[in-house]
Parts: sequence; C-alpha cells; structure tokens
Amino acid sequence: MSQPSRRVALVYNAQFYVGPPLARLLAERGHDLVVGDPADGLADELESLGAAVEVVTGVHDLAAPGSAQRLVDAALARFGRIDSATAFTGNVVVGRFLNSTDEDLAAVVRGCLEAPYHFLKATAAAMKDNGNGQILLITSASAARPTPGAPLYSAARAAGTMLARNVAGEMARFGLQVNAVGTNFMDFPEFLRASGGDDPEVRARLEAQVPLGRLGTVEEFAHFCMPFVDGTSGFTTGQFVAYAGGWA
Amino acid sequence: MSQPSRRVALVYNAQFYVGPPLARLLAERGHDLVVGDPADGLADELESLGAAVEVVTGVHDLAAPGSAQRLVDAALARFGRIDSATAFTGNVVVGRFLNSTDEDLAAVVRGCLEAPYHFLKATAAAMKDNGNGQILLITSASAARPTPGAPLYSAARAAGTMLARNVAGEMARFGLQVNAVGTNFMDFPEFLRASGGDDPEVRARLEAQVPLGRLGTVEEFAHFCMPFVDGTSGFTTGQFVAYAGGWA
Repeated sequence: MSQPSRRVALVYNAQFYVGPPLARLLAERGHDLVVGDPADGLADELESLGAAVEVVTGVHDLAAPGSAQRLVDAALARFGRIDSATAFTGNVVVGRFLNSTDEDLAAVVRGCLEAPYHFLKATAAAMKDNGNGQILLITSASAARPTPGAPLYSAARAAGTMLARNVAGEMARFGLQVNAVGTNFMDFPEFLRASGGDDPEVRARLEAQVPLGRLGTVEEFAHFCMPFVDGTSGFTTGQFVAYAGGWA
Repeated sequence: MSQPSRRVALVYNAQFYVGPPLARLLAERGHDLVVGDPADGLADELESLGAAVEVVTGVHDLAAPGSAQRLVDAALARFGRIDSATAFTGNVVVGRFLNSTDEDLAAVVRGCLEAPYHFLKATAAAMKDNGNGQILLITSASAARPTPGAPLYSAARAAGTMLARNVAGEMARFGLQVNAVGTNFMDFPEFLRASGGDDPEVRARLEAQVPLGRLGTVEEFAHFCMPFVDGTSGFTTGQFVAYAGGWA
C-alpha cells in the first residue's frame, strides 16, 4: 500500500477470557481489529476507541476445519494484511492417568494441539511475506510442569506450546515472531466453574496453591501480552512464558 | 503514607544499554525514579516527563560492596518505598574452555553472579513488606543455551538467572515478583565494540547468527521489559525470557 496504514491485529476470540481486554488494549494502541465472536457491545466499544473492526462469527472452535482460515481471509479482505494474531486454545480434561480413556486423549489433542496447529498454519502462511509480524499463542502453564490431576492435558499443552516454538524457528527468516504464553489460576468464570472456585472455600484452597497467593486477572494478563503483539518489541521469538503466579 | 503516591522505580544504571530507554518509559508511565549514574541530561529529561528523580552516582559496579544498598537507601530516603527495581549485570569473558584461567572464572562469577546476588538481596529485603513489587534482573540469553566461545560466561549467566528464579520462589508469599530477561545480539556500542560489529563485514556475520536476521535495539527491549516493571501485570514470577532474535 502506498500510504502509511494502521497496524491490523487479529484476536481469534473476543467473547471471553483475555479476548476482550486484549482487543481493547490493541485498539487503544492504534490497531484496527479482526475479532472472532465478540462479546455483546465490544465491537462498538472498539470502534469508539478509533479502531476499524471486522467481526467474524462462528469461529469459536479453532480445531474445526476452516475456522482459522476464515479469520485470516476476513482480515485480508478487509485490511489487506495482518500484523499481529493472537489465539487462546485448549480443552481441559482432568482425572488420573490410569482412569483416562482414548476419548480423553483425543479431546486434549484436538483442543490443545490441533487448534494451535490450524491457527499457526493459517496465520503464518498469511503473514510470512510481510517482512515482520507477531503471532502469540496462549496455552497453559501446565505445558511447563507435570500437573497433578491433569496428565493428558499437561502433555497436550506441552505439544502445542513446543509447536509454537518450532514454528518460530521456521518463520524467523521471514521476520515473523511466534511466541507462547501459558496461564493457570486465572480469575474468570469458566475457570471458577470448572475448578469449583465459585465456592469461597474451594477458591481459598486454589489460591493456596499459587505462590503469589491469589488468582490472576485477565486485564493484567492482557497487559503482559502487549509487547508480544503490539509492535513495540520485535526481537524476541520462540519463547514461552508461564503466567501463573509462580506455580510454574 | 496517607495519600496516594506515585510508583517508585529504581533503575540501577541509566548511563547506557537499556538503562536510559527503561527510565524514559517508566517516567512516561507515571513513575518517580531512582537512577544510578545517569547519562548526561537524562535526569532533566526524566523530570520534564513529570518524574521526581533521585540520582545516585558511583554505583556502576553492583558487585562492589554497598552499591546496591546505596541505591536502595537513596530510594527509601527520598520516596519511602520502591515498587519496581531493574538491573543489568554481567562481565563478558570469551575464549575456549581449555584456554581459560582461574581469573577468568572469578571474573564471570563476580559480574554474572555476585552482582545479581547483591542487587537481588538489597532490593528484595527493602521491598518485601510492601505487599507487592517487581524486580527484574537483566542477564543474558547465554543463560539458556551453551554458547560457543563463551563457556564460563554462559555458565555464570545460568547461575545468576536461576538465582533470580529461586529468589522469586522465596519472595512470592510477600507478593513480590522477581523475573529475569536475558539478551544477546543487541545493537549498542559496547556490544559492537566487544564483538567487532563496528566493522560492517563482522556485523553481517553476527546478524547471520540471529534467526531474525538483525540485531535488537535497546528501545524495543525496554518496551518488552515494561510489563515486568511498570505495575500493569502482577501475576507472573520466577520466569526467564530470552530476548535474542530467536538465538535462544
């Protein structure tokens, strides 16, 4: 394009978890946005922050064929390029290893490895000829250590996370950064429901497992993600950082 | 203190490398500052950005007894607290292992382990009763992988980096975050001089070792450091990230 253009950021899901605060911070930092399945009112809010916003619906399941490509295609059709792309993925399966089933294994592979695979492939292919770009895959801190009660999930998280680091190696010569950040013990409704943390006693026991003694917020996590996606910092790639209060 | 106060950030050295851009970004983000040995004109510039600035001189050598404590004491005397503390350390020694000397070993231990030790100890002791706080130790990406031509340096970097991660474990119950970030292949005069990179041919060979194909800038590195020190993100601790263009 002949005139200077705004950066374009793709946020795979802007409905829950870190999606909405990520999209807000990127809009505040001058990005136009492609957002998947945004929460009610979010697209208007992003536009009021100055962003042009392209909404794609029905792409919640990144492991489903075509979801990631639909997001990418919408970005290219509307803006002609993608500078930054973020996805969170995962399918939590808990329980002891000896009690697990083939279906459990297939479920974690689908959510924790196939979903990242499709997202990384669609975005890397679309971004590699830009000369620069940032892909951030949000996984889980359970990728970094054995996780009592979730052995299949931890293993599949390790796979998805290491895949991102490998893709970083292959994409570096194109100037494309690929990093991964993994959370645990975050304070958001789905985690509280899945962990029983809506009950104050259970929540206290969860917090006691976190060295920092509390759960993390999605807002502070969005701030942490910024240098990986907002274009201010172009020289780190292939990294994984655990964002879990010191648990990993 | 009974009235809301600005955050106070300590930047061990504001003379070169990432020190000046770190101090500028922290000032822009509403911090008052304690800076060691600032570059000419920097203190005035920080004040023009709205920061109250306390200058401490003669603390360049963090391995020297009292340097870190002098910075901490100056911060407490002027502002009564420290919210964020950053240091970069290190003493590069290159050469083959079989050619190395006891003096080489002592030099890397002093610069890469004793300096971090004193900085971490002085700052952690001063910050632990705040209820929160952020310490960032800047080390080297050579901590994360064997480094051809710098075996003693790489080993001592691993020690200093892992020390920070251990301190994070001990300090988590105080709400104090301790993280480490390690660079390599950064574009600043001391690296270029030490590596021969002032010569364009040598620089091209250096860049060819970096998967991203270029050297990093201290400005983008300062942006990368922000969530570890600017108070926006309080839920990660004990982490190490390599900032080296994909080399580590």
